[in-house]
Amino acid sequence: MKNGVGDAASGCLSAQPTVAILGSGDFSKCLTIRLLRCGFHVVVGSRHPKLAAQSFPHVVDVTHHEDAVGKAGIVFLAVRRKILVDVSNNRRVNQYPESNAEYLASLLPDSIVVKGFNVISAWAMQQSSPKDASTQVFICSDSVEARQQIMELARHLNFQPVDMGTLSSSQDIENMPIQLFPGWKGPVLLAVALSIFFFAYSFVRDIIHPYVKYKQSDFYKIPIEMVNRTLPTVAITLLALAYLSGQLAAAHQLYYGTKYRHFPHWLEGWLQSRKQLGLLSFFLAAVHVLYSLCLPMRRSERYLLLNTAYQQVHANVENAWNEEEVWRVEMYVSFGIMSLGLLSLLAVTSIPSVNSMLNWREFSFIQSTLGYIALLIATFHGLLFGWKRAFEEEAYRFYLPPSFVVALALPVCVILGKVLMLLPCVACKLHQIRRGLDSSQYRCQRLEPVGMAVQVSPERVTIM
Amino acid sequence: MKNGVGDAASGCLSAQPTVAILGSGDFSKCLTIRLLRCGFHVVVGSRHPKLAAQSFPHVVDVTHHEDAVGKAGIVFLAVRRKILVDVSNNRRVNQYPESNAEYLASLLPDSIVVKGFNVISAWAMQQSSPKDASTQVFICSDSVEARQQIMELARHLNFQPVDMGTLSSSQDIENMPIQLFPGWKGPVLLAVALSIFFFAYSFVRDIIHPYVKYKQSDFYKIPIEMVNRTLPTVAITLLALAYLSGQLAAAHQLYYGTKYRHFPHWLEGWLQSRKQLGLLSFFLAAVHVLYSLCLPMRRSERYLLLNTAYQQVHANVENAWNEEEVWRVEMYVSFGIMSLGLLSLLAVTSIPSVNSMLNWREFSFIQSTLGYIALLIATFHGLLFGWKRAFEEEAYRFYLPPSFVVALALPVCVILGKVLMLLPCVACKLHQIRRGLDSSQYRCQRLEPVGMAVQVSPERVTIM
Amino acid sequence: MKNGVGDAASGCLSAQPTVAILGSGDFSKCLTIRLLRCGFHVVVGSRHPKLAAQSFPHVVDVTHHEDAVGKAGIVFLAVRRKILVDVSNNRRVNQYPESNAEYLASLLPDSIVVKGFNVISAWAMQQSSPKDASTQVFICSDSVEARQQIMELARHLNFQPVDMGTLSSSQDIENMPIQLFPGWKGPVLLAVALSIFFFAYSFVRDIIHPYVKYKQSDFYKIPIEMVNRTLPTVAITLLALAYLSGQLAAAHQLYYGTKYRHFPHWLEGWLQSRKQLGLLSFFLAAVHVLYSLCLPMRRSERYLLLNTAYQQVHANVENAWNEEEVWRVEMYVSFGIMSLGLLSLLAVTSIPSVNSMLNWREFSFIQSTLGYIALLIATFHGLLFGWKRAFEEEAYRFYLPPSFVVALALPVCVILGKVLMLLPCVACKLHQIRRGLDSSQYRCQRLEPVGMAVQVSPERVTIM
Repeated sequence: MKNGVGDAASGCLSAQPTVAILGSGDFSKCLTIRLLRCGFHVVVGSRHPKLAAQSFPHVVDVTHHEDAVGKAGIVFLAVRRKILVDVSNNRRVNQYPESNAEYLASLLPDSIVVKGFNVISAWAMQQSSPKDASTQVFICSDSVEARQQIMELARHLNFQPVDMGTLSSSQDIENMPIQLFPGWKGPVLLAVALSIFFFAYSFVRDIIHPYVKYKQSDFYKIPIEMVNRTLPTVAITLLALAYLSGQLAAAHQLYYGTKYRHFPHWLEGWLQSRKQLGLLSFFLAAVHVLYSLCLPMRRSERYLLLNTAYQQVHANVENAWNEEEVWRVEMYVSFGIMSLGLLSLLAVTSIPSVNSMLNWREFSFIQSTLGYIALLIATFHGLLFGWKRAFEEEAYRFYLPPSFVVALALPVCVILGKVLMLLPCVACKLHQIRRGLDSSQYRCQRLEPVGMAVQVSPERVTIM
Repeated sequence: MKNGVGDAASGCLSAQPTVAILGSGDFSKCLTIRLLRCGFHVVVGSRHPKLAAQSFPHVVDVTHHEDAVGKAGIVFLAVRRKILVDVSNNRRVNQYPESNAEYLASLLPDSIVVKGFNVISAWAMQQSSPKDASTQVFICSDSVEARQQIMELARHLNFQPVDMGTLSSSQDIENMPIQLFPGWKGPVLLAVALSIFFFAYSFVRDIIHPYVKYKQSDFYKIPIEMVNRTLPTVAITLLALAYLSGQLAAAHQLYYGTKYRHFPHWLEGWLQSRKQLGLLSFFLAAVHVLYSLCLPMRRSERYLLLNTAYQQVHANVENAWNEEEVWRVEMYVSFGIMSLGLLSLLAVTSIPSVNSMLNWREFSFIQSTLGYIALLIATFHGLLFGWKRAFEEEAYRFYLPPSFVVALALPVCVILGKVLMLLPCVACKLHQIRRGLDSSQYRCQRLEPVGMAVQVSPERVTIM
Repeated sequence: MKNGVGDAASGCLSAQPTVAILGSGDFSKCLTIRLLRCGFHVVVGSRHPKLAAQSFPHVVDVTHHEDAVGKAGIVFLAVRRKILVDVSNNRRVNQYPESNAEYLASLLPDSIVVKGFNVISAWAMQQSSPKDASTQVFICSDSVEARQQIMELARHLNFQPVDMGTLSSSQDIENMPIQLFPGWKGPVLLAVALSIFFFAYSFVRDIIHPYVKYKQSDFYKIPIEMVNRTLPTVAITLLALAYLSGQLAAAHQLYYGTKYRHFPHWLEGWLQSRKQLGLLSFFLAAVHVLYSLCLPMRRSERYLLLNTAYQQVHANVENAWNEEEVWRVEMYVSFGIMSLGLLSLLAVTSIPSVNSMLNWREFSFIQSTLGYIALLIATFHGLLFGWKRAFEEEAYRFYLPPSFVVALALPVCVILGKVLMLLPCVACKLHQIRRGLDSSQYRCQRLEPVGMAVQVSPERVTIM
């Protein structure tokens, strides 16, 4: 590469090669303006040069494709074969069996195809140094040299190139800008469905039942109390579901005696959405805490308290202290806070840059050990909240059990499942399977700590 | 490169080239010590070698510049031309028209200049593997080879090199260590100014007015209630301002019929500080929630409640239930929580590593769609809090409208502006402009979803 | 490199070189399956080929080491000397004096050793594109070419390679997957020890004392009130300890008159755990806020309030307003919120991706300036909470001072220490030392802002 002294005025190199851009769409226009600003000479190739020329600055040479290629001599710096940068996008995920870039490469076997620049938004393209938009440009090509030249070009245009390896990554790169939270769809729909179910359930029990039975109008409870009864039930169900998938995977491994057999598709997808289930659970739990903390500031609470004070004075009861009630509330509030504290640690380690600082042991300690403890404490929180009401007849309005009973069934099962998996015989078998031994090979002689199971090849030098 | 077997004791290569460092300042000393620790031979060049030699370890050869260059043979590994690493910093942003590195390159056309190492703090330089300080080293040079050699050297010294491309980035790299939150100055000053205004406004209405009119001393309300009245008004104003800038930009594009015309400078700056406005708004909203949740635990609240209980007992009112008040409070608390929940999603996606995982569609969905919904819900929160008070005469103390009326004027305008922009005719025109068509070219035949407007070149292969 | 057109069906290159893997452990199996899936031909070398062959797919050629190497021709792409990838892990941190990879390189001087792939968990290895596990692969080698080839291979297998430089980094890479929060052990143990001490202290004073003296059973206070008394004392102690280490470092520098003298080991370790101390302090402070906010929703609070209402009515006290109490509570709640607000800013800037966007000046402003202000405000929060109780005789139960007196002693000392260091004469001397001048050289002529002390070489071009 030339060791050209930078042209300070433009902030770009002084002697730039001519760049040919074939195509005259909007992206072509934006790229032209950016290249011109950095001092490049630009030739644009178009099928209708006359028409297209109207929308380009007059210093740009808009001409036919062949002509443009001829004038540019060599596109993007001097190499023997031309480098073609494919910036195209599709309208749907996996729209064509092969990626646009691979299709292009098969059409033009004499050229080197580089995929890239397709993820940049128009806003980021127009800014000289965008700070509020992502400036990552994902680049892939089968030619390492071409890839590095285009990465250098991207740096020059103030973008951050990310090396994505060979052209086989182009399908992924083309899918990137089209997706809308692909991993979140299932978990969010599940959370919405669960919310509707538990809200309706509570509505029937706590609003409809007293209205039908005692003509008592408690509709003011809908915006806060009903919502606040729905949130924790959905949160603990989602958390239990996140851990249930891991138990099913372990059961699958135990059943087949190997870890090399593929999980069924539904389980694979479920396992991959554990992070989303956990984060949704944390979000709903945090909102539940906010709602709970707002309870004492409501006007309804105030009226009810004043009413109780009035009645207590009139009944001449100096102190209505109920030791059991006091302990129940102190305990379930305390367990609730502890559970949220642990869940917040799990949420923080889900931030990508925190996550990438953890090794597998640390990640597993936080997400598995602390996560199960959080689930256990959250279950206690629910059980203490419910107290003896599950065994009282008047709690079964319309013959429906209280919603905490419905919500806690699954978490209790998951906790029992975990206890089962911690039994020495099961844990040892699972440990051996995860070390890569088939069921015919292993004998459980000594129980090593489970944490070791995840280390790949603990021998000194495995592959030599 | 030599395939030298690592010297396990020092953790460095055994046979190291001699490195010449020209200059004997503090940075030179730190770098010398670090290079020595890794086994390099170091020659220091100084204008006053005798004086300078006192502050270097005796194994270091401190000599004149020319002599040092001669002894080192080739600075930083064997290359034909010397590589000069410029680590200098300035005292002010853009102190000189060209960067130090570019100035150096123009003085020494025979050498290859690499800019780097200037952002490392003395603390990070002294640690062998600093964990609490940033170890990123930004490197740029017009020579790709020299840049990679210096990046390799940086890795060797346990720093993380970041490739910044050609020497034209050196101005940016030199500005890096001097800046103090450059993008935050404007938004923070604005937030402070708004806070002072709204605090003074509330102070006059809620403290001065009752004192003047009824000799009622409510000064105890200053630390919490007054602050808590100021915070939400500033928060919602900042959020509305963040979205107002986008609407002005759209109006600019609609007026000129093109997106290729530059925005005025003030609008450009405003658009670029949307993220900061949004984050400040979230921070103030979160602190507002904390203050609100603390209200019931205050001693003043307790005294007032007990006083009400006393009066209710004496007036023989068993139940003071006011259905309208109950509903108002339940609703505005509920809307407040929802609004904070949405804002917290916006804040999380502003964490750089989360942000860089989102594509443009996802970022736009969170920041634009969810953001507008948060603004809408926050506005309802304010309107429900105000209820009918805007229409009551006694709310206009000193003829001043209640502060929520002042605070909600702007958000309501911004929401109406958004509704205007969602009208089919306006949305279609804007959509065409953002696809890069000039006003003369387009005809609105069918209304595609607005989200598509941001995709660059939806044709199969645009640039080929 | 070949410009092979991607094989769209498999998403991999069509003509792949034969890869030999020596060793037949679990890692070898996983890697074989992954390489096969990408179309590579795999030869596995084993000491017991017949036994090992049973656990590999039949298309894999399992043979003796020498044979495998012979069949593969050239391991991992065509280079003159073979590239050996060492994926081994140890069982303990720094188990051997030199790393496995360096030991291997010394045994096989004719080969190029690359360290890598050891940090990948079995889960990430089995997924084709794992989204919930870290896919970072740390690679180091003394040969730049070999390193880049293995990084390219890693990219091809959908991992993210991180260039760690020469083989001297292999010890660090080998320690990575074994460590379990190495920097957190000390701070967490300290926090636990402090928690036990302060909990026991409060327990004796607030539960045992009233029980012994007045037979008053306040055991219901344990789950929430006792915990909530422990949390803030531990939090403020940890925050003060974080800043105390910096003051001791400054004292060390002032005493010896230079910054080039090493700190003692204990101080070095303490300085490096400041971040952990600060984050633990923030976490405990946040949980303390949660506990405090839950206080008014407890049943015990409700009973006590109703009891007070009853007594007030019977004593015929219309209003028990106590202006001093009101002000005390309003002030300490207000200071508490401000302190948490500032601490949350410190916590956010500890997220790695936010941290790496800050330069040294910004980081220092947040962590040092804002951090000291947070400590100051938190100390006021504690002092206002205590109010005059430190001077009242009945506060000294069992002759023990109230726990806030014990907890605030250290923060007050640290704040006084900071004030001392801001005195012009001390600040100037420290400033000169940190600019790299020895005590013999400097004279304090003018007091530059302390912030400048951290800039390396403010001259225009230092190293030229």
